[in-house]
Amino acid sequence: MKILRTIQEIEEYTKAVKASGRTIGLVPTMGALHEGHLTLMRLARQSCDVVLASVFVNPVQFGPGEDYDAYPRQFEDDCAQLATVPVDAVFHPDPVVMYPSGYATYINVESAITQKLCGAKRPGHFRGVATVVVKLMNLARADKAFFGQKDAQQVVVIHRFVADLNLPVEVVMAPISREASGLARSSRNVYLSASERTAALVLHRSLQAAQTAFSQGEKECLRLKQIVQTVLGSEPLADPDYVELYSFPELADISRVQGPALLAIAVRIGRTRLIDNIILEAEKPCC
Amino acid sequence: MKILRTIQEIEEYTKAVKASGRTIGLVPTMGALHEGHLTLMRLARQSCDVVLASVFVNPVQFGPGEDYDAYPRQFEDDCAQLATVPVDAVFHPDPVVMYPSGYATYINVESAITQKLCGAKRPGHFRGVATVVVKLMNLARADKAFFGQKDAQQVVVIHRFVADLNLPVEVVMAPISREASGLARSSRNVYLSASERTAALVLHRSLQAAQTAFSQGEKECLRLKQIVQTVLGSEPLADPDYVELYSFPELADISRVQGPALLAIAVRIGRTRLIDNIILEAEKPCC
Repeated sequence: MKILRTIQEIEEYTKAVKASGRTIGLVPTMGALHEGHLTLMRLARQSCDVVLASVFVNPVQFGPGEDYDAYPRQFEDDCAQLATVPVDAVFHPDPVVMYPSGYATYINVESAITQKLCGAKRPGHFRGVATVVVKLMNLARADKAFFGQKDAQQVVVIHRFVADLNLPVEVVMAPISREASGLARSSRNVYLSASERTAALVLHRSLQAAQTAFSQGEKECLRLKQIVQTVLGSEPLADPDYVELYSFPELADISRVQGPALLAIAVRIGRTRLIDNIILEAEKPCC
Repeated sequence: MKILRTIQEIEEYTKAVKASGRTIGLVPTMGALHEGHLTLMRLARQSCDVVLASVFVNPVQFGPGEDYDAYPRQFEDDCAQLATVPVDAVFHPDPVVMYPSGYATYINVESAITQKLCGAKRPGHFRGVATVVVKLMNLARADKAFFGQKDAQQVVVIHRFVADLNLPVEVVMAPISREASGLARSSRNVYLSASERTAALVLHRSLQAAQTAFSQGEKECLRLKQIVQTVLGSEPLADPDYVELYSFPELADISRVQGPALLAIAVRIGRTRLIDNIILEAEKPCC
């Protein structure tokens, strides 16, 4: 597995791959890899000639007071996991390689889709995500790029700017990877103590409760959100940041679920902020 | 010469060209083509396998009250000129093709280089330029893109975001194309009456006066700008918008010319705003 650290290294690598007529699948990550990331890598492996992972904790998408410094960094362990897929190359630049002195260009998705959910709670977050993903897509000369549904709003934003900027990249979203307990896999789960990890199960439990009610006919958004809030309220260590339900992928306000809808939550467990979601799919009208 | 009007048409065209291993030179224009544009096309012809021109009056780079509606549109005449080069294909989309309903993504170069000169006088102008040029570069799958020095600040901004976003495109700047009278060629020259056209010669004359003084040893920016202003002041129809001198390509404030420097002016002649510039090159120290 090639390790690429500079702009010149990745550009030479991807240029040569493309010149040979092969396709490139990009899987951008911030490292601290888990099974969810590896699922994305395997998906890329299945449909692209070359799989290029990136491991880069992107400073621009963290706000003041967020966990940029604390974010887990374990590059050697990440490489060991990537080699099992196998991944062909990993891009692991220093921040100064991505944002050298004089850096000035940022991509803004000026739409309600970046103002809701995590966009409302983390100002500038999606500006940082959009900027780094465009840079990575360009450097990777990617044919396809793979993202997890856990960051569903991120995938919506990425779809938006890829279409708007006419980037020649296909965006693929993979389902949320969960532990047997139901906990959505996240690099931030390492922040959790044993008791917090147990408490964190309430996120998925609350979504499941709403899913059950939905399947039994409950379509009112207010009611579905109340079900989530009630379950979250039963866990003393859980402090909900938001519980929202929007149409998917438009993220438009809705009062009833009539098409695909994103039920998304952010919850603080102790000092750790976790997110989770499900997509509620209205059943097709019966023949 | 192929005429491409939709995203699908240009994507299919450029994808096929690239798949065959040929290089693509992009020359973005707003149409109303003149000899300056054709010089860019010929430059592209010399160094790229396929030359793709775009003719698109980009609404996003015009401010309220600017000349978006009045901007000259003469696509058939443009095509006749392009065919003489010859150009291989021209992309001529409707605005709704480039900015469909729901469009939301804009590129901001958050640097002093967009705050000066035309950036100070035309808020949002370079946001519009950056956004459309990134879209065109992506659609064209361009290896090189060609721009004229008359919009020197634009070229500086394009260099900035191409480097920042790691776009795999080489930016080429061609010298200003001038009529025999010295008037810089511009699509906006058609707005000028006969007497205004004569008055407009003062732009180049003022820059030449500064160039002469510079060649004779004058390095003080204040003095060089005064020389320009004095010449401009001699023409009753000329109303200067700005006269500025910055280092090039950094566009940093300077008090003396010690390296390459951009002497740039914007002047209203009647209701028409014209720009012109020269790059002052400090002589190399003698052996």
